[in-house]
Amino acid sequence: RQKIQIAEYIILKWTLSMLIGLLTGLVGFLNNLAVENIAGFKLLLTSNLMLEHRYALAFFTYAGCNMILAGTAAAICAYIAPAAAGSGIPEVKAYLNGVDAHSILAPSTLFVKIFGSILGVSAGFVLGKEGPMVHTGACIANLLGQGGSRKYHLTWRGLRYFKNDRDRRDLITCGAAAGVAAAFRAPVGGVLFALEEAASWWRSALLWRTFFTTAIVAVVLRSLIEFCRSGKCGLFGEGGLIMFDLSESVPTYSMSDLIAILVLGVVGGVFGGLFNFLLDKLLRTYSIINERGAPFKILLTITISLLTSCCSFGLPWLASCTKCPADAVEQCPTVTRSGNYKNFQCPPGYYNGLASLFFNTNDDAIRNLFSSGTQNEFHLSSLFIFFTAIYSLGIITYGIAVPSGLFIPVILAGATYGRFVGTILGTITNLDPGLFALLGAASFLGGTMRMTVSVCVILLELTNELLMLPLVMLVLLISKTIADGFNKGVYDQIVVMKGLPYMEAHAEPYMRHLAARDVISGPLITFSGVERVGNIIHALRLTGHNGFPVVDEPPLSDTPELVGLVLRSHLLVLLNGKRFTKDRVRQPCENVLMNFGASDFGKSGLGKGLKLQDLEITDEEMEMYVDMHLIVNTSPYTVAETMSLAKAQVLFRALGLRHLCVVPKNPKGPPIVGILTRHDFMPEHILGLFPHLKPAKPLRATT
Amino acid sequence: RQKIQIAEYIILKWTLSMLIGLLTGLVGFLNNLAVENIAGFKLLLTSNLMLEHRYALAFFTYAGCNMILAGTAAAICAYIAPAAAGSGIPEVKAYLNGVDAHSILAPSTLFVKIFGSILGVSAGFVLGKEGPMVHTGACIANLLGQGGSRKYHLTWRGLRYFKNDRDRRDLITCGAAAGVAAAFRAPVGGVLFALEEAASWWRSALLWRTFFTTAIVAVVLRSLIEFCRSGKCGLFGEGGLIMFDLSESVPTYSMSDLIAILVLGVVGGVFGGLFNFLLDKLLRTYSIINERGAPFKILLTITISLLTSCCSFGLPWLASCTKCPADAVEQCPTVTRSGNYKNFQCPPGYYNGLASLFFNTNDDAIRNLFSSGTQNEFHLSSLFIFFTAIYSLGIITYGIAVPSGLFIPVILAGATYGRFVGTILGTITNLDPGLFALLGAASFLGGTMRMTVSVCVILLELTNELLMLPLVMLVLLISKTIADGFNKGVYDQIVVMKGLPYMEAHAEPYMRHLAARDVISGPLITFSGVERVGNIIHALRLTGHNGFPVVDEPPLSDTPELVGLVLRSHLLVLLNGKRFTKDRVRQPCENVLMNFGASDFGKSGLGKGLKLQDLEITDEEMEMYVDMHLIVNTSPYTVAETMSLAKAQVLFRALGLRHLCVVPKNPKGPPIVGILTRHDFMPEHILGLFPHLKPAKPLRATT
Repeated sequence: RQKIQIAEYIILKWTLSMLIGLLTGLVGFLNNLAVENIAGFKLLLTSNLMLEHRYALAFFTYAGCNMILAGTAAAICAYIAPAAAGSGIPEVKAYLNGVDAHSILAPSTLFVKIFGSILGVSAGFVLGKEGPMVHTGACIANLLGQGGSRKYHLTWRGLRYFKNDRDRRDLITCGAAAGVAAAFRAPVGGVLFALEEAASWWRSALLWRTFFTTAIVAVVLRSLIEFCRSGKCGLFGEGGLIMFDLSESVPTYSMSDLIAILVLGVVGGVFGGLFNFLLDKLLRTYSIINERGAPFKILLTITISLLTSCCSFGLPWLASCTKCPADAVEQCPTVTRSGNYKNFQCPPGYYNGLASLFFNTNDDAIRNLFSSGTQNEFHLSSLFIFFTAIYSLGIITYGIAVPSGLFIPVILAGATYGRFVGTILGTITNLDPGLFALLGAASFLGGTMRMTVSVCVILLELTNELLMLPLVMLVLLISKTIADGFNKGVYDQIVVMKGLPYMEAHAEPYMRHLAARDVISGPLITFSGVERVGNIIHALRLTGHNGFPVVDEPPLSDTPELVGLVLRSHLLVLLNGKRFTKDRVRQPCENVLMNFGASDFGKSGLGKGLKLQDLEITDEEMEMYVDMHLIVNTSPYTVAETMSLAKAQVLFRALGLRHLCVVPKNPKGPPIVGILTRHDFMPEHILGLFPHLKPAKPLRATT
Repeated sequence: RQKIQIAEYIILKWTLSMLIGLLTGLVGFLNNLAVENIAGFKLLLTSNLMLEHRYALAFFTYAGCNMILAGTAAAICAYIAPAAAGSGIPEVKAYLNGVDAHSILAPSTLFVKIFGSILGVSAGFVLGKEGPMVHTGACIANLLGQGGSRKYHLTWRGLRYFKNDRDRRDLITCGAAAGVAAAFRAPVGGVLFALEEAASWWRSALLWRTFFTTAIVAVVLRSLIEFCRSGKCGLFGEGGLIMFDLSESVPTYSMSDLIAILVLGVVGGVFGGLFNFLLDKLLRTYSIINERGAPFKILLTITISLLTSCCSFGLPWLASCTKCPADAVEQCPTVTRSGNYKNFQCPPGYYNGLASLFFNTNDDAIRNLFSSGTQNEFHLSSLFIFFTAIYSLGIITYGIAVPSGLFIPVILAGATYGRFVGTILGTITNLDPGLFALLGAASFLGGTMRMTVSVCVILLELTNELLMLPLVMLVLLISKTIADGFNKGVYDQIVVMKGLPYMEAHAEPYMRHLAARDVISGPLITFSGVERVGNIIHALRLTGHNGFPVVDEPPLSDTPELVGLVLRSHLLVLLNGKRFTKDRVRQPCENVLMNFGASDFGKSGLGKGLKLQDLEITDEEMEMYVDMHLIVNTSPYTVAETMSLAKAQVLFRALGLRHLCVVPKNPKGPPIVGILTRHDFMPEHILGLFPHLKPAKPLRATT
């Protein structure tokens, strides 16, 4: 029987991973399809009006479409699921670190994330769909693992195996990987992203599962794109599995180019650090506006939308018309909706370089920046204007109440200054400006996200340009190093700003001077192994603690002895079962567990499970006793009170604990001194208790 | 002052990483250069004799060269550093798991590994240089971190920061990654290999450092290859950073091809499982021969060399001559030493397909198998013969006393059956046989090595063929899954066979039924905080324990109290300092530490540091007392004796402990019950104590 259960578990585990891959791949494809069609339709409509020289009408059409799309996105986000705003990567990261923030992975969040992201990207904002795709993947994983809602009787017995933190986190890691894989069509990049950025605990076995999930995503995407290539999907259908194919260009570079590349790395680091700093300041300002309620959120979004429309429609007028190059591979000026040579206001035979960047979807703008063999396509002034606009818009767009990813804005801005450098060096370097754009994107990604291997592989999978790998690595390392001197990575910053109690893997230096007992907070509430129901109810009502130590005292044992730790959720289930007795005596096992099935004590989904107010305990029952020995975790991890806090932190974090019992050094006292939880390790808590402990480095602007 | 130390540490850390990358890249390049020149010279010599139809002389020249090279390799390996035989990956893996096997990373091992590998590969054995390169990288990292030998006064003060397990392991992880990066010219693959296969504990920060190291390797290799392209390096110089460039071929495949690919995956799994099984059996047989002494090792090596020569010279005669294809891109028959169309015994205008595979370096054979646009180059019979020979030779070659990697034989055999399938399906599939060969190689790698993401990325970097990625992933997953049903991965198997106490990340199911106290072995030896020197010496002499609990009893404390844990190495240093007292009294801090510098207690290199026999303690001193409070680790990690063994194992492994104190549940007894070490968690130990506990799955043939 046990073997069957193991087999059942393994089959389910892999089936779920496959389903996550399938569904995330499907959502990613639909997202792409919808965006290309909506945005494409909008751009075609406006372009046609431009061709007829009806510029004012074109602007109103363009801005109007954008505002309607933006307003709808903000409305569903503000009213249905406020948690869906923003990237979602910080929240997923915090969840995988053990922070169960409410409603982060709820069905409503999933719904808004999918449709809000489609609307937001179509509305022409300077934002991407990758963050939201990661969040979407995580939501899908969470909902699959929970097996739908208990309210609608959609739960399934088989999923009881997944009612624990570890299996749930594993699924969500797979979901996050699938999200990146679907957004960038980068399966290996997805795995590495999940590893480097998302997951806090990581095992070799998990590597294999995320890999399986992203392989499924890749297969799904490839089949669907293959299907669309025949023109069955409206405006969507161009481009293959590689989004920005650069493999045509052969990188040749010499030592002198290396200097330019080093400069790019430094510039990326500085711009990245500044970006994170400004973003943090702006998010704090926005949160004041957003807290005022849904209408303000929508208003803010529409304002930003109008500003974006003005920029992308207005700024191209600053650029002069350029004569089409005679040797252009592509048609010039472009007649379809996307392309290198946008006509805009120019006469036939001429194109407006700035419009090719602004008046396009973000993906197409990146494609144009990366394009090789088009040395002088963009004027330096165009690139400068575009960079300034995108950098500013990228910052002010992120905080609005719409699902918004940061990857695309960062790649866009980075590619622009990369191409700028490439164009300047045009005559003295052999490296194509398109490849400079790639290096610029890498440097800015390194400066903001502070990821290394995953960004490297994602860029490789995006561009299919393996020979650039050593240069990309170099640039990333430089920009990350420099930016790390200024502040934290953008996602870490947002985690801190949102007040999520994220636990770092390493202990802070000042923790070494403290002992575990120094940071214990609040009075300790212990239960006896057989406790009066009234006491338990009182304690549960009085505190928000999720774990209580159980201490047996005479007559239950010879000396006061720590039996173990009991969880709030388990206590609630036990009390709900009502196996109470009149006297304080231990019960035989069968009596206590009679009313319970194996899965009753499984961890329920976020925001689900029994609550204290659900219990109906009569006054008479309050005076009775309940034996909780059977639900006590009899071997909790413990540390001595004198253990250095740093070592306790390492233990807490490495094992992913929620409660850590602190036991006395001297065996004469009570058998437990206190319980440490995640909050007791937070710098704010510790520095609040010991203000004289200055952290070794000054705390960053963000903490 | 502390800030300066931190800065010093950080700068040193990165400098060392850079040096590891530089040196490993250099060694990798020299290895390549030497092999190509030695093997190329040998092949040219033989080929010229063949052209003059002096076949017997050609064979004797060929076999003679091989035997001399093989004999030399075996001799330096057997006499100078027996630890350098084999791949080295299992040893590095065990070291990173915490097993400090002696002489694994010694300078002599490094020397033999480098030159033995060059000689072995040049000798035409069916073995590769990647395993040895990993080991070489690890050795370089270890020696750099130790800062040379104390014997030769080459130590340097700055390196005292690295005299601890963690920093040393980090360096060696970087070294392993650099090794793979240098062997395959695959920087990202190297990082992933270090992560997936080598390292047992892994942090995000380490990812970044390994990445930096492999980036350096890539830059070094690229510069040197660029330098050689102009013909300054003898026979070496062709080929760029991508060893087997496949990017010319465009993969087009349909659903029906997928079935063939699934079949390839299954075949790879079966062949892989069988390979591991046979390899294990053969290694056990060989170890009987090798244990008899160095001459037997050399004899065995020479025998295998002769056999290999016979195969690679004799078997091509079985193949009939094929007319050169009219549309061949390359010259046919080949005139240089490597190429697709070896002439061998054939008349001009004809080539011998089997000779193109056998009578070549392994790298060139792989290149020929991967080559695209050459549909019918190899007869099915040739491929069949080649596969059988390589599969068998690969198994019987691994155990000989020569540094030998498994990647190349596995890729070679896998590519052969992949191409076999591709050739069979030639008429009904659009996929090139070269791409089938790639998939075959992936499937066999998955079946033997059981790595996933790293193999995938390594293959990607070897072939520059991104579009095959989903298929490669699929094939890998299938073959790994099937092979996992048979036995463990080849490196895990070798670790077990060598008796290295490797700790798995997960606890075995039967551990859940045991408590921590159940597996404590041997009598517990405790010291008092101020102990008689004689007692300490006696205990150190009597046992091999590396850690002893220190318990203060009245009058030193009120009640018996666990002070902490003291390490053997620290005790030896303390005793060597001779700050003894006549009476059993605690000493002021200054008195005890007077004779010691900060770095005296740092962990010395493997096989170095003070030994018990180095101490000179007089009889009088034996009766004196020493205060060890200052060298005691006062907050060791502890578990209660009743804690489930599985949880104790998780704690032990997750924190990378060497000693785990087991404390009593009941506070009345002595303050410590025992100490758990790595050996107490080994299945052999536990199942020896509790033979009735059958593991859930039957133990594999290998354990």
